[in-house]
Amino acid sequence: MSTQSKTNGVVAERLAQVRALMSRERIDAYLVPSADPHLSEYLPGYWQGRQWLSGFHGSVGTLIITQSFAGLWADSRYWEQATKELAGSGIELVKLMSGQPGPLDWLAEKATSKSVVAVDGAVLAVASARTLAARLYERGASLRTDFDLLTELWLDRPGLPTNAIYQHLPPQASVSRGDKLAKLRQALQERGADWHFIATLDDIAWLFNLRGADVSYNPVFISFALIGPQRISLFVDSVKVDAELRQALEGEGITLVEYTNVASALRDVPADARLLIDPTRVTCGLLDHLKAEVRLVEGLNPTTLFKSQKSDADVQHIRQAMEQDGAALCEFFAWQETTQGKEPVSELSVDLHLGQARARRPGYVSPSFATIAGFNANGAMPHYRATEREHAQIEGDGLLLIDSGGQYLGGTTDITRMVPIGTPSTEQKRDCTRVLKGVIALSRAHFPRGIASPLLDAIARAPIWAEGIDYGHGTGHGVGYFLNVHEGPQVIAYQAVAAPQTAMLPGMITSIEPGTYRPGRWGVRIENLVLAVDAGKTEFGEFLKFETLTLCPIDTRCLEVSLLAQDERDWLNAYHAQVNKRLSPLLQGPALEWLRTRTVAV
Amino acid sequence: MSTQSKTNGVVAERLAQVRALMSRERIDAYLVPSADPHLSEYLPGYWQGRQWLSGFHGSVGTLIITQSFAGLWADSRYWEQATKELAGSGIELVKLMSGQPGPLDWLAEKATSKSVVAVDGAVLAVASARTLAARLYERGASLRTDFDLLTELWLDRPGLPTNAIYQHLPPQASVSRGDKLAKLRQALQERGADWHFIATLDDIAWLFNLRGADVSYNPVFISFALIGPQRISLFVDSVKVDAELRQALEGEGITLVEYTNVASALRDVPADARLLIDPTRVTCGLLDHLKAEVRLVEGLNPTTLFKSQKSDADVQHIRQAMEQDGAALCEFFAWQETTQGKEPVSELSVDLHLGQARARRPGYVSPSFATIAGFNANGAMPHYRATEREHAQIEGDGLLLIDSGGQYLGGTTDITRMVPIGTPSTEQKRDCTRVLKGVIALSRAHFPRGIASPLLDAIARAPIWAEGIDYGHGTGHGVGYFLNVHEGPQVIAYQAVAAPQTAMLPGMITSIEPGTYRPGRWGVRIENLVLAVDAGKTEFGEFLKFETLTLCPIDTRCLEVSLLAQDERDWLNAYHAQVNKRLSPLLQGPALEWLRTRTVAV
Repeated sequence: MSTQSKTNGVVAERLAQVRALMSRERIDAYLVPSADPHLSEYLPGYWQGRQWLSGFHGSVGTLIITQSFAGLWADSRYWEQATKELAGSGIELVKLMSGQPGPLDWLAEKATSKSVVAVDGAVLAVASARTLAARLYERGASLRTDFDLLTELWLDRPGLPTNAIYQHLPPQASVSRGDKLAKLRQALQERGADWHFIATLDDIAWLFNLRGADVSYNPVFISFALIGPQRISLFVDSVKVDAELRQALEGEGITLVEYTNVASALRDVPADARLLIDPTRVTCGLLDHLKAEVRLVEGLNPTTLFKSQKSDADVQHIRQAMEQDGAALCEFFAWQETTQGKEPVSELSVDLHLGQARARRPGYVSPSFATIAGFNANGAMPHYRATEREHAQIEGDGLLLIDSGGQYLGGTTDITRMVPIGTPSTEQKRDCTRVLKGVIALSRAHFPRGIASPLLDAIARAPIWAEGIDYGHGTGHGVGYFLNVHEGPQVIAYQAVAAPQTAMLPGMITSIEPGTYRPGRWGVRIENLVLAVDAGKTEFGEFLKFETLTLCPIDTRCLEVSLLAQDERDWLNAYHAQVNKRLSPLLQGPALEWLRTRTVAV
Repeated sequence: MSTQSKTNGVVAERLAQVRALMSRERIDAYLVPSADPHLSEYLPGYWQGRQWLSGFHGSVGTLIITQSFAGLWADSRYWEQATKELAGSGIELVKLMSGQPGPLDWLAEKATSKSVVAVDGAVLAVASARTLAARLYERGASLRTDFDLLTELWLDRPGLPTNAIYQHLPPQASVSRGDKLAKLRQALQERGADWHFIATLDDIAWLFNLRGADVSYNPVFISFALIGPQRISLFVDSVKVDAELRQALEGEGITLVEYTNVASALRDVPADARLLIDPTRVTCGLLDHLKAEVRLVEGLNPTTLFKSQKSDADVQHIRQAMEQDGAALCEFFAWQETTQGKEPVSELSVDLHLGQARARRPGYVSPSFATIAGFNANGAMPHYRATEREHAQIEGDGLLLIDSGGQYLGGTTDITRMVPIGTPSTEQKRDCTRVLKGVIALSRAHFPRGIASPLLDAIARAPIWAEGIDYGHGTGHGVGYFLNVHEGPQVIAYQAVAAPQTAMLPGMITSIEPGTYRPGRWGVRIENLVLAVDAGKTEFGEFLKFETLTLCPIDTRCLEVSLLAQDERDWLNAYHAQVNKRLSPLLQGPALEWLRTRTVAV
């Protein structure tokens, strides 16, 4: 019996236990999303109940259990993995496709009069709960959110992480907590609110100039914040805060409260409060603790918009972090080029050496996400990750895609480059060239200040669409400042809703990362981070453009240069001149030599 | 005393009468939109109550009256006109700007507990009524939609138009009524509906292959349609239908019912009906007649999507109509070029001669909208219309913008061209060239089948944004087939909501009409109609591209050719070669000569 089938025997048993509990509680369908009370991208073990229950280890997936059915909804990047992991478990993989009904639609569709759907309200966003409840109501069914079925079953459930919290200090932290809190209070007043509750970890980390290590890659800590007219409460496990930090925070009027006391603090919010919350970033289980009379003011957390617009001082640190990151990449690429063909190089050794090169750089803290190093066919999976058990040797001819990033005290990086292995084919080079055309088109675009960012996507895609090629992921995500590598509110993706809150504003950092994926063959992606900057005010309004922040050669051996128009070559040559100028002082020996060779004009 | 002040004295009197009625009825605010029960773009005189009450003649504007305030909300194209027309009337112009609160926001904001807002439900879309009612409810206020205040006051109110209805026949009508109705019934079934009510005039005209002349420019007739499981009712004033047509329709199972009997027919819809309606295209006043038990199925009218996707046979007729329209334009331009500088030419004589040239062409029916012929500063007003009282002579140097179109039995045209007068300045030529770059960029784009059309807008704007220029109108609107020159559901405008129903599909005809407007100086717009056609299926999905339908030279004397890239010149030369080839056979003498000169390659 394989390990997998043993696991799946366990899963089948757990399902039976869940169904028994559902009968007892008269629940017809139980929904387990991949979520925690902070609605974070990365979940601590305590909140990985969907994984524990289903045996599916992918980071995103939704489980629904009824007496006669169990299904796991997952998008295309997880289908292969889910098929393997769910085999024999009694759980069906339901393929989630854009434009097709999702798990909530399924629940609404299947609901009949009097049926009861349950989900742990602690991990369900207020907005999702409202939508689901309304759709069930239409069917005469109801939603129950006061019940965490896992509590009774998951006996070896992990505890919450207890890593130390530390300050993000000047010079990298360029705005004080006091100034940020004052600006927040001003925003609350403008929106007619006098209280504010925040559950999102990066908002809290930014607001208080604090960092932690409670989840992978994002330097945040498990917490809530409640801002009232008289009192600012930060809810954290007290073991995470040393005496010095406690004194510093309390000296600035910030009250530290135990994380587990958040419910009682919400119960104590006075009946006449006007409480600002973001219904997409707070769970219904938490809000249920409020008095019924508390008036909700709903909208984006002001901190989400504040932190997306980096200050000039932040940007200066980010430019330096980009130089260090680029230098680390040159060192890595010089090693790779020297080693390739002489010693065995695998996707895993790429990850290792790249991490080591970054770790030598000042201000480096950690990777900003799990490195994606995919050779040929593995590069065709946009979210591929090499593991000890499954990874490729890099040998022969083709393309190696490396998507990686670092957390530095002065910034967060995220870069994808294509590396030629042996001799890439003409078709591979054409794919790389068209993707580069997309990068160039958007990198040099000007656009009206405040345009909804999804509307910019077509500019990057047009040169790729021209060849009948498209890619399933967004072209650009927001990036934090020594914070999450994925942050909003801006997003350059035609699949996203072009809501007013996605407005592109000066100081926002976004990735530009078009791609081309040929399943089973190879994948191409080229990614730079760019900063939205002022492009001048005319009689037609204010315009913005992008400053490219990422500094690292784009390997011209992967390109079919003849396909580039003269103005595109000019862009590439100017970029490489800039890369050469800014990275040279940080390099020496083979890395400097590699930089010079790889930045020669075409 | 001027005519204007006399009018405004009358308006002030009418306002006083309205306020007296409002007191009697205990109405705190009365809203008069520019709308009719069909939510049409052009209104018959009977429904121009807002104009009668306010004295403002612009086609779009919303009037709100309270005891202490009267305001007219209008967008920027009407500010100059509204300022003049409202002077001394006691009605304030409220400037409507995108992103700023509109009249409904104002009402919701001002509403207090127990206050009553009234609007004639006959002209308020269900969706708008719901939104307004919900916002008033939040304030403790209420909405009344059962009261048309104008009935008592407007004693010389015009009657409804009674123009004859006629058939749109083969060969131009390529699909029979029977086939269209069968397809509609299929769509109803797919959506779980067994009844369907249509209030939109172009949907009805398309569905029944009928045309009329009840409103300006759009060949539609005032009507409703109710499709039930057993019976298809068409509600029209019986005087409009001659015996032969009546017999033809009744022979196909279509029951003609008096227009005024629609309310009783809606009352008779059975309680167990599932009725499909489009809440944005049906008014609440009409729906109020339904039994409370009737279950509404809501969504786009299926006919709206059907008619947007022209059949191959339709497209063949449209190509021919484009040739006739292009030939008419060449004749006009040849006249204009010969006459200019020899005899006085005004914006009005342009309109006259252009209309005459079109009228000589086979299949021509009428203009498809009021010609916009704007010289220099007048061209800077996107919706300018020359009148007997106010128009410019065309003389000296500059640019003449001509936006015009025709209704033909085999298609609807809409084209904008720039005409050089004397010697256009370098700056004028640069503006024209950049606008042309926008036209070219979108005209040759490929894109995924079904993409939300607003997302394509950035492709046309990017070359214009690059110079810090933008324009306030959309880049493209859908165009009917011998029907409305503005039809949805597709729209290429970044200001629009990129809803799924805006998906770009094969057979859709859209304008591409970027512009640049320099108030008080000149305006530039270049407009072609394009057809979405298959661009092939690849491993990445199905792609579409545009076929340019409009055939007329783009005057290169208005261009700074050196600013065009080689591939843009190639596009222009190929377009002109096509125009020359297809229009030559339809022309002779000076018009043919003009065509040949104006299509020489650059």
